[in-house]
Amino acid sequence: MANIAKKVSWSSRGDDRGERTPLLNGAEDVKYTRQDIVRSRPKEIPHNEKLLSLKYESLDYDNSENQLFLEEERRMSQMSFSCLEITRWVICGLIGFLTGLIACFIDIAVENLAGVKYFVVKQNIEKFTELGGLSISLILWAVLNSAFVMVGGIIVAFFEPIAAGSGIPQIKCYLNGVKIPRVVRLKTLVIKVCGVICSVAGGLAVGKEGPMIHSGAVVAAGVSQGRSTSLKRDFKIFEYFRRDTEKRDFVSAGAAAGVSAAFGAPVGGVLFSLEEGASFWNQMLTWRIFFASMISTFTLNFFLSIYHGKPGDLSSPGLINFGRFDSDTMGYNLYEIPLFIIMGALGGLLGALFNLLNYWLTIFRIRYIHRPCLQVMEAMLVAAVTATVSFAMIYFSNDCQPLGEDHTEEYPLQLFCADGEYNTMATAFFNTPERSVRSLFHNPPGSYNPQTLGLFTLVYFFLAVWTYGLTVSAGVFIPSLLIGAAWGRLFGILLSSITSSQSIWADPGKYALIGAAAQLGGIVRMTLSLTVIMVEATGNVTYGFPIMLVLITAKIVGDYFVEGLYDIHIKLQSVPFLHWEAPATSHWLTAREVMSSPVTCFNRVEKVGTIVDVLSNISTNHNGFPVVVHTIEEDEPGKICGLILRSQIIVLLKHKVFVERASSRLSQRKLALKDFRDAYPRFPPIQSIHVSQDERECMMDLTEFMNPTPYTVPQETSLPRVFKLFRALGLRHLVVVDNENRVVGLVTRKDLARYHLGKHGLEELQLAQT
Amino acid sequence: MANIAKKVSWSSRGDDRGERTPLLNGAEDVKYTRQDIVRSRPKEIPHNEKLLSLKYESLDYDNSENQLFLEEERRMSQMSFSCLEITRWVICGLIGFLTGLIACFIDIAVENLAGVKYFVVKQNIEKFTELGGLSISLILWAVLNSAFVMVGGIIVAFFEPIAAGSGIPQIKCYLNGVKIPRVVRLKTLVIKVCGVICSVAGGLAVGKEGPMIHSGAVVAAGVSQGRSTSLKRDFKIFEYFRRDTEKRDFVSAGAAAGVSAAFGAPVGGVLFSLEEGASFWNQMLTWRIFFASMISTFTLNFFLSIYHGKPGDLSSPGLINFGRFDSDTMGYNLYEIPLFIIMGALGGLLGALFNLLNYWLTIFRIRYIHRPCLQVMEAMLVAAVTATVSFAMIYFSNDCQPLGEDHTEEYPLQLFCADGEYNTMATAFFNTPERSVRSLFHNPPGSYNPQTLGLFTLVYFFLAVWTYGLTVSAGVFIPSLLIGAAWGRLFGILLSSITSSQSIWADPGKYALIGAAAQLGGIVRMTLSLTVIMVEATGNVTYGFPIMLVLITAKIVGDYFVEGLYDIHIKLQSVPFLHWEAPATSHWLTAREVMSSPVTCFNRVEKVGTIVDVLSNISTNHNGFPVVVHTIEEDEPGKICGLILRSQIIVLLKHKVFVERASSRLSQRKLALKDFRDAYPRFPPIQSIHVSQDERECMMDLTEFMNPTPYTVPQETSLPRVFKLFRALGLRHLVVVDNENRVVGLVTRKDLARYHLGKHGLEELQLAQT
Repeated sequence: MANIAKKVSWSSRGDDRGERTPLLNGAEDVKYTRQDIVRSRPKEIPHNEKLLSLKYESLDYDNSENQLFLEEERRMSQMSFSCLEITRWVICGLIGFLTGLIACFIDIAVENLAGVKYFVVKQNIEKFTELGGLSISLILWAVLNSAFVMVGGIIVAFFEPIAAGSGIPQIKCYLNGVKIPRVVRLKTLVIKVCGVICSVAGGLAVGKEGPMIHSGAVVAAGVSQGRSTSLKRDFKIFEYFRRDTEKRDFVSAGAAAGVSAAFGAPVGGVLFSLEEGASFWNQMLTWRIFFASMISTFTLNFFLSIYHGKPGDLSSPGLINFGRFDSDTMGYNLYEIPLFIIMGALGGLLGALFNLLNYWLTIFRIRYIHRPCLQVMEAMLVAAVTATVSFAMIYFSNDCQPLGEDHTEEYPLQLFCADGEYNTMATAFFNTPERSVRSLFHNPPGSYNPQTLGLFTLVYFFLAVWTYGLTVSAGVFIPSLLIGAAWGRLFGILLSSITSSQSIWADPGKYALIGAAAQLGGIVRMTLSLTVIMVEATGNVTYGFPIMLVLITAKIVGDYFVEGLYDIHIKLQSVPFLHWEAPATSHWLTAREVMSSPVTCFNRVEKVGTIVDVLSNISTNHNGFPVVVHTIEEDEPGKICGLILRSQIIVLLKHKVFVERASSRLSQRKLALKDFRDAYPRFPPIQSIHVSQDERECMMDLTEFMNPTPYTVPQETSLPRVFKLFRALGLRHLVVVDNENRVVGLVTRKDLARYHLGKHGLEELQLAQT
Repeated sequence: MANIAKKVSWSSRGDDRGERTPLLNGAEDVKYTRQDIVRSRPKEIPHNEKLLSLKYESLDYDNSENQLFLEEERRMSQMSFSCLEITRWVICGLIGFLTGLIACFIDIAVENLAGVKYFVVKQNIEKFTELGGLSISLILWAVLNSAFVMVGGIIVAFFEPIAAGSGIPQIKCYLNGVKIPRVVRLKTLVIKVCGVICSVAGGLAVGKEGPMIHSGAVVAAGVSQGRSTSLKRDFKIFEYFRRDTEKRDFVSAGAAAGVSAAFGAPVGGVLFSLEEGASFWNQMLTWRIFFASMISTFTLNFFLSIYHGKPGDLSSPGLINFGRFDSDTMGYNLYEIPLFIIMGALGGLLGALFNLLNYWLTIFRIRYIHRPCLQVMEAMLVAAVTATVSFAMIYFSNDCQPLGEDHTEEYPLQLFCADGEYNTMATAFFNTPERSVRSLFHNPPGSYNPQTLGLFTLVYFFLAVWTYGLTVSAGVFIPSLLIGAAWGRLFGILLSSITSSQSIWADPGKYALIGAAAQLGGIVRMTLSLTVIMVEATGNVTYGFPIMLVLITAKIVGDYFVEGLYDIHIKLQSVPFLHWEAPATSHWLTAREVMSSPVTCFNRVEKVGTIVDVLSNISTNHNGFPVVVHTIEEDEPGKICGLILRSQIIVLLKHKVFVERASSRLSQRKLALKDFRDAYPRFPPIQSIHVSQDERECMMDLTEFMNPTPYTVPQETSLPRVFKLFRALGLRHLVVVDNENRVVGLVTRKDLARYHLGKHGLEELQLAQT
């Protein structure tokens, strides 16, 4: 079993490193004492999407308004709050700036590395085209690709497996409120950046855009906390922001800045963050996120303009540049809209196929390819195969086009074409995918012949399916766009060959754009934010309406078959992900059925021994404990008077805040919020805290540290109502009380995430320790 | 006092019409029994912004999950929920379509009416320029203007005063959760549309864009309810949506569709709705809003393209068209950014001045100009003055420019200029403001001379200040843009005359755009949504970053002096508007201090006489009543077991749902949710329901109809926490309980809106019956 958990590269390796025992790391408040209900008994069942892992913890988006916190807030003047607000803006500016710089670095590094590679291979091919023996060129190309990918694969697989993939599923989970271990560390960022450079330079069917979102999030988490655990440096700044609430807000800004830098889409970035993360819309927060996004794209633009030798020319706002769609020469007509909808449906179908194939492949990988060296070898194999297939396609293609005067192709391969002509298949393969997308959008009609496009679509589709999920840092946006642009352009060409009126259907570039949107929408199923991203990336609002129609059609058609790619991967990790609303048909469930019970509670003044025993009990391993006052009848559950977190108790134990000591150590300073902040976010495990036998007999007074006003609901509350409260306020624990205010249960994220709408109505997921 | 309330055209006239007595209409749950606290005793104090009116009710955004509701939801299959969702989409499509049509109608009507007017006046001027006696032309112009404005003023002042102004403050309030009487009625829409056509055609310094937002909202409210109270028609469709929750969601979509049609900015529309309204972000809702926005701009575009004789040419997505900013020829440089920031600060200053002048004027109007005929006369006066001033400016200006070959001017006035030349001052005044804005953005350098622009800015500024708040339907967006564009262009011209390097500062149109953004931002203080609206209206993302910088500078500078124009007008109406967060320094307040107490509660089974008496008591006039169970000690407050609304009780009383009748009338059908929906939204007042003396002795069982799980908070909860819960879930009543679950207080919107951050820290507003 252990190795099954380990196979999934982005989730579990951190836990195996022994920082905490795997059991202590998670399993939040799920009681499985009610033996009569099968579902709540965690079993060791092989990894599948019908499980909900107990391994993931929630973020505490709800402030614990205990006495310490209230005292601090009450001491603060209006001026201090203004200063805090200004600090938040400064941090957002920094996040945007650094994210832009990283994007700039990635872009320049990839351009140069790939440039060198293509130059060398091109020289070689040209040399051997006349001499014969092109197989040597093939080997050179394959070896170069594999070498790049090997480096990228090794650093990811051996040093930081969570840096694999695009990171978007992980950031989605984080913004949703799930703590994914190691996801926002500096080390992850470094590996991610180097990894993505290697995989793009290595010619894989991947993009460098997706990982920017993850990178932005890491930057945000680092900057806002004013310290780095990887570097073991604490700059002693921004200490006020050391809690989950603030950190998650900044991470939203970082993710938005990442989108903004990747696509030159600041508004799209804001909408992405909101679509994925926000539960409670806050105007000032949104505005800060927007600021970070703007700074990010501006920084990228500015530094790239300097790099390209045209300082001040702010025309490359993102990593991907779709080129300029001119609204004068291009436009669409009303009667083209049904065609766009058909393309949307096609994108949905192809997207579903993509996801399904990738799903099976991922299951296969989880089962069989879980050792790091195997993972690296698979990545190298894919790189070599990509080179070979590309080479074969170019070799056997006889689609020659005259070389234009404007030299839009950076590496035109003549190969067996006549002088002054170049091989068009080569332009699609022998190029970074970003350039290929742009060529498909903008090259004049007649640049590609239909066979070339069809074959390219087919081959690239399977290559992209195989590539996504490899243990390398890479995004799926660009390959999706490329596949879509290829078949979209094909669609446009076929259309204009069917209809006689050349003038109307003249521009296949338009269909390439729509096809790209359809394919991407069919795979990732994003809607609002993706529309805006596409519109911003094209720099033209004319296509907004068709792109929206296409994306929505793709989503509806795709959802009929299988979920979006990111959701599939999240489900395969058994993450307790909360959707926007409770399943529609769940009104018959109430808090009583949903909650976990009985609940482990503490008294206001509790014996240290009891507390240590409860915390040490690895079979229950709760994270939040209601604090209760008992009435005369001791056997009844107590009345709720507060809620305290495991992390808070740990700090209390560490500082030996016992009642007996309070009188004897008057000289010692009182515990302050700072002590909790210093320990955040990695509170030590209970095992590391030594409590002597004498101390076990002491008492701890929790009054000052507990949250005295936790949110509660009565037992009769319906599941949608519980869900709404939980989701809107970003809660971690919701106490269920009876009409006497006695604690009868506790609702946590897993209790809610468990219910989902399947093919046969409401279904329940099983809980497991995977 | 009564007439002071009446003076404010948009709020109170509906109440005077006797549909309900003014007292019954509002005063939601504010208990003023605690005589020791002065603030909570409502007084009849003259209208001012330090008051909070008891007149406005809240919307019920929180579903009352009573047994009837739960039974209905549980009966529904997954398929029915899907059908509902599809219906929502259809409604949103309809909303978008109708809003687009209305925008199209307004545009065409204004174009034609204004066209006829300018043609007639131009003919006249040309005739008298040579003959002498231009004063006749002036009189003709002034009379024409006044006539249009008179019609517009009369229909607004006498028939539907709430249709005055742009309607944006009212929609802001509605989306915030405040029920403004008569604001979303069909009659309001008709008056609004006719009114705006008249005022724009009448040459006032107003725009036709702002009112579109209100129009969209009315369309949404009408369509989604499937009936019209103005027409007294019930189409018996969409009955499921007859509650505040659903209606407000649709109204958000309508407002977004309005913005979208006005500015051709679908994304801006969505963001406007979210910025103003949303508390809980919901992905599906947002996507529907976006759909409505897209359909709206598309419809407008499509029909306008047909009207302009170029069907299928989708190049006019909004009422205002900023023209095309070409990213090749225009662009900005890094060293221009400080200049933009200076312009932003200037815009903030001028905006603050605008708001301050308008604030004083509004106070003056509230005091002295409150009779409808006076209001109409003021409007006519403004129209005549506008014409006179314009004429004088044109007459005394001697700024002649050669007539371009491209004829960008539709009505070039030669006046005293040489042949082949035209008067530039006339182009600014003798035009719809939309055209003037576009000319300022796009006319080539040298089209205007600095004196003309300076004088124009000055005159138009004061005209616009005077115009906003008149009893006509009109928006403030376009005049703001025009003022800003004028001084922005002036700024650009001065800049290029100072610096020698003509090539860089060549295009004053760029500065006109930035100036327009600065001025508009300084007046309305919108941020994120306005940036996106400006970007979409220019159709160019290049200026996104400078526009954002400018808007944020304008907001910061402006906020230092005075609030935004809409907020000023909302405050002058004493609307209990909830901001995004509780004041930062309010942590020392708890629910105990904030709540109203004691609370009028009902028993589960209550005597009809008691209920009728409580409802009839106009001195308390509560809208929500906790339902309690009493323990043995009768003098203690009871334990909470539910919450019931006045409107629900009214329906119960109307249908005589008494315990005694239940057994005797087995044949009679059970009360269903449909009965509540039919009565929505205008539940009859208690006075209209006859309850006989016998019936007064009957008992009513509230169990089935009350919300059994209202949200509650303990007394110690801090104000920010209460606020967050209240705002995030869109509550109307929040019950405060002690640790035995006994009801000790009730928090409503007014209890929270009362606290605000003033110059001297936390301040409390007084409650009043105004």
